[in-house]
Amino acid sequence: TLDVALYDHLINPEILEVLPKTCEKIYVGKTKGKHSKKQEEINELIVSYAKSGKIVGRLKAGHPFIYGRGAEEVEAITQEGINVEVVEGLSSAISAPTIAGIPLTIREKKDSILIVSAHLKNKRINLDWIENLKKENLRIIVLMGLSRAKHIQKKALEIGIDPKKEVALINSLNKQIIKTTLENLEEKAKKIEKPAVIVF
Amino acid sequence: TLDVALYDHLINPEILEVLPKTCEKIYVGKTKGKHSKKQEEINELIVSYAKSGKIVGRLKAGHPFIYGRGAEEVEAITQEGINVEVVEGLSSAISAPTIAGIPLTIREKKDSILIVSAHLKNKRINLDWIENLKKENLRIIVLMGLSRAKHIQKKALEIGIDPKKEVALINSLNKQIIKTTLENLEEKAKKIEKPAVIVF
Repeated sequence: TLDVALYDHLINPEILEVLPKTCEKIYVGKTKGKHSKKQEEINELIVSYAKSGKIVGRLKAGHPFIYGRGAEEVEAITQEGINVEVVEGLSSAISAPTIAGIPLTIREKKDSILIVSAHLKNKRINLDWIENLKKENLRIIVLMGLSRAKHIQKKALEIGIDPKKEVALINSLNKQIIKTTLENLEEKAKKIEKPAVIVF
Repeated sequence: TLDVALYDHLINPEILEVLPKTCEKIYVGKTKGKHSKKQEEINELIVSYAKSGKIVGRLKAGHPFIYGRGAEEVEAITQEGINVEVVEGLSSAISAPTIAGIPLTIREKKDSILIVSAHLKNKRINLDWIENLKKENLRIIVLMGLSRAKHIQKKALEIGIDPKKEVALINSLNKQIIKTTLENLEEKAKKIEKPAVIVF
């Protein structure tokens, strides 16, 4: 059982309630605009608690190995000779379309899946994947794209993607689902709560 | 609770044991070379049981919406006016690399994920994705690729991919993990049990 739990923003409170009463709970979330711990500080915290003989849990929002910086945390910890076990849950990249009834593959129609983030390091916008919208047989899942919906729509229309192309916006936490078309993406993106997944 | 359960090949026996004793269990798996039910027959079975007033469970091996033909089953059933609920589990596309300690994304190194199948309809081999191996920042997950390892290796080398490129073979059911390089892919593929995922 855990001695210490370092938890993110967006961790379901029900998970925290399941932790043993003796477990020290430390919030290390990154909320926009608010003071929070840097990645290096989180890594140091994990290492120092583990070195003091404690069993440390790191409760991450989102799949730890999909844009979760879990790889960096695992690396920092194992470099110090500390054992790590990764326990994964469902990733919204797959569960969001599933909740919305959108198959990730469809025989003879959609035969591959591309998962991208519209947000990369230092808040850099990523639209390198946009050309892939031309591939009809590709299901594209865009993470962290909600605040970039305007740019995604603009760029996609610029390169000649059909304005009527189907797109869905899905928040898998509160099960909010909006099915729309490319030409309405920016407008509809204002009507769904973060974090949401965009599915083409 | 379920009245009838139609289950696939590779369903964990522990799942069948959890079903109520009154639940009728019907094997509809597709095993190579053995007589088994066709997709159309499965759809008809689901519909006819549901129409007779029974609650039908369809236990699928693999994520229902990722190369699982779940989309077709859902469509066939809803067309008959029957309600469907999809309950997903972890997909080996994501859990296999996670089990092997291979992050799907790595900040500044791997920023997108492509999931493909080396096998398409009518046993057709799919190598259309091979050119993507040139993209260093792309994590590529190949499903149903084990028996095509020879062709994948040959074609990848032909288009100039580094023979030393890292590749992993992972069976997430029995936790078998082989980390190797492209030039040894074919040989190592013989040493792992099906079903396995190939990760570049």
